[in-house]
Amino acid sequence: MTDRFASLDALRSACANLPAPDKGAGAAARARQAVLTKPPGSLGRLEWLAEWLAEWQRRPVPRLERVLVLVFAGNHGITRRGVSAFPASVTAQMVANFAAGGAAINQLCAAAGAELRVTALDLDAPTADFTEAPAMTEAEFLAAVATGYGAVSADIDLLCVGEMGIGNTTTAAALAAALFGGDGEHWAGRGTGVDDAGLARKRATVDAGLARHAAALSDPLAAAAALGGRELAAILGAVLAARHAGVPVLLDGFVSTAAAAPLARLAPGGLDHAVIAHASAEAGHRKLAAALGKEPLLDLGMRLGEASGAAAAVPILRAAVACHAGMATFAEAGVDGKE
Amino acid sequence: MTDRFASLDALRSACANLPAPDKGAGAAARARQAVLTKPPGSLGRLEWLAEWLAEWQRRPVPRLERVLVLVFAGNHGITRRGVSAFPASVTAQMVANFAAGGAAINQLCAAAGAELRVTALDLDAPTADFTEAPAMTEAEFLAAVATGYGAVSADIDLLCVGEMGIGNTTTAAALAAALFGGDGEHWAGRGTGVDDAGLARKRATVDAGLARHAAALSDPLAAAAALGGRELAAILGAVLAARHAGVPVLLDGFVSTAAAAPLARLAPGGLDHAVIAHASAEAGHRKLAAALGKEPLLDLGMRLGEASGAAAAVPILRAAVACHAGMATFAEAGVDGKE
Repeated sequence: MTDRFASLDALRSACANLPAPDKGAGAAARARQAVLTKPPGSLGRLEWLAEWLAEWQRRPVPRLERVLVLVFAGNHGITRRGVSAFPASVTAQMVANFAAGGAAINQLCAAAGAELRVTALDLDAPTADFTEAPAMTEAEFLAAVATGYGAVSADIDLLCVGEMGIGNTTTAAALAAALFGGDGEHWAGRGTGVDDAGLARKRATVDAGLARHAAALSDPLAAAAALGGRELAAILGAVLAARHAGVPVLLDGFVSTAAAAPLARLAPGGLDHAVIAHASAEAGHRKLAAALGKEPLLDLGMRLGEASGAAAAVPILRAAVACHAGMATFAEAGVDGKE
Repeated sequence: MTDRFASLDALRSACANLPAPDKGAGAAARARQAVLTKPPGSLGRLEWLAEWLAEWQRRPVPRLERVLVLVFAGNHGITRRGVSAFPASVTAQMVANFAAGGAAINQLCAAAGAELRVTALDLDAPTADFTEAPAMTEAEFLAAVATGYGAVSADIDLLCVGEMGIGNTTTAAALAAALFGGDGEHWAGRGTGVDDAGLARKRATVDAGLARHAAALSDPLAAAAALGGRELAAILGAVLAARHAGVPVLLDGFVSTAAAAPLARLAPGGLDHAVIAHASAEAGHRKLAAALGKEPLLDLGMRLGEASGAAAAVPILRAAVACHAGMATFAEAGVDGKE
């Protein structure tokens, strides 16, 4: 699938060539909201979500019949620097747990009526330690982007993206710093639960990576190859494919948001088709959401990754769609309007 | 049903005699959370919710098979003071809309897998204008409390409460002021959407009610009778019945929270079996939540009432229960723990 994007320039071109929303569908949805049996605006963000789904699904009455949750897994060379509370072996073990149905995301997808697909990306070949070399070659990065791109089809109504990868909050912190400025202290958090010494190692690792790849930082895609990970690259590809296919996206937490963020740097409004599902408890996530001008939907102190926050937010979108599609109008119900 | 509570004193006694949570069930749930395949605490409030449900359902593994949404409707004498953007006729019209399935709460209950029951309380006989007389006689108040109490059975796993009543954000503001201090300016908001003049009338109405019933303000139940409404009294009864029956509760927005608040004033921890489902955009709700020491689950700018925020939050509790009951342990999944 690497021939989908033959070079960084080809990918950059695909990222710059993005469909606009269907403003007509959005306006029709907004007009319908105004006559439903409720005070104007009283469903708050549920009304906005219905209009946002309408614009990106290009339908005045959006639907959520088919919701796909994609979880990408990757391993990271920087784990040898002691940046995680868990051993790197856990990445593959959790992929097996996903397959067996025992992880949080399995339960959350079942509860949300969503389909789960997990893609493990070369777990036996971790990325390089980015303090010493680019995490991925250009070819490795493009292959991972293409895998994510190819995982999205146009027949879904909503895409949720998530990840599994021991060490990848450090990866995400480095990528966020590359894209938006700041250093390890600004972006690195405790991830799965490192102690103070582990947090100091994470910050130092980020700073070493930024110094090592200073020449790449001004190019979002070069930075994503040098400091990122395969699962982050796949998320970028999937979010890009969703834009091209007219599929709205729920981003999960810190890692998923950082993974998709190059799109926002490469094109104005490049992430307008994506909503951040929840504010992760991972330290950098609120800063990253603010840098992207986005307000997360949920704030439940979650910090698990694996698309858990995105899946938890799917029912909020279902509520928005149910109200929008199913409510009676004032005229239909014979309810008096404002005095 | 008024013989259930023959007097304010009998009701006061019932409100003071509340079952404690099952700390053993909570501890068992907490112990299980610690061995599920996720970093400790990484599901945030979902973990807390599973433990809270366990404590109040008195089961180590809580369930949400039967979720009941009760909406109570009432009319208010103060509507003649111009406190609402909508005419009082809308209360009965919306009850008809609930029956026909056209309201937001119908769609939200269907989406959440919850059963909806609507109880209209003497809509043809509005409460008295509380600036001139007590809103309800003691007998009227106790009858409404008893109606709410009788609507709850012990075979449900979760109760959501909500209301419909043109004028009742003014009622709720007056009751909140009686229970927690402050005046009309502090507690009254724009409700369904009054303009500045309407907001001024709401504030003045609250202040006039507080002055008229100053002698009743120190007694939460007397205040609820003098300043409240039938639907608020029914919510109080339902939330009390849930406590007696071992049923956890999701409160909706400003009016529902104010309606239940006398329980917190009558007994320490009187609302510990209740969670506030969402932070309403109605001005007084965050202040009221803070006064009760509660952090709402959702913050979506909703301000519709009719249990809409509570129903929207039901899937969050379902997510918590699904993870708690369905996830594999580290040992079961063969996943390595922290290093």
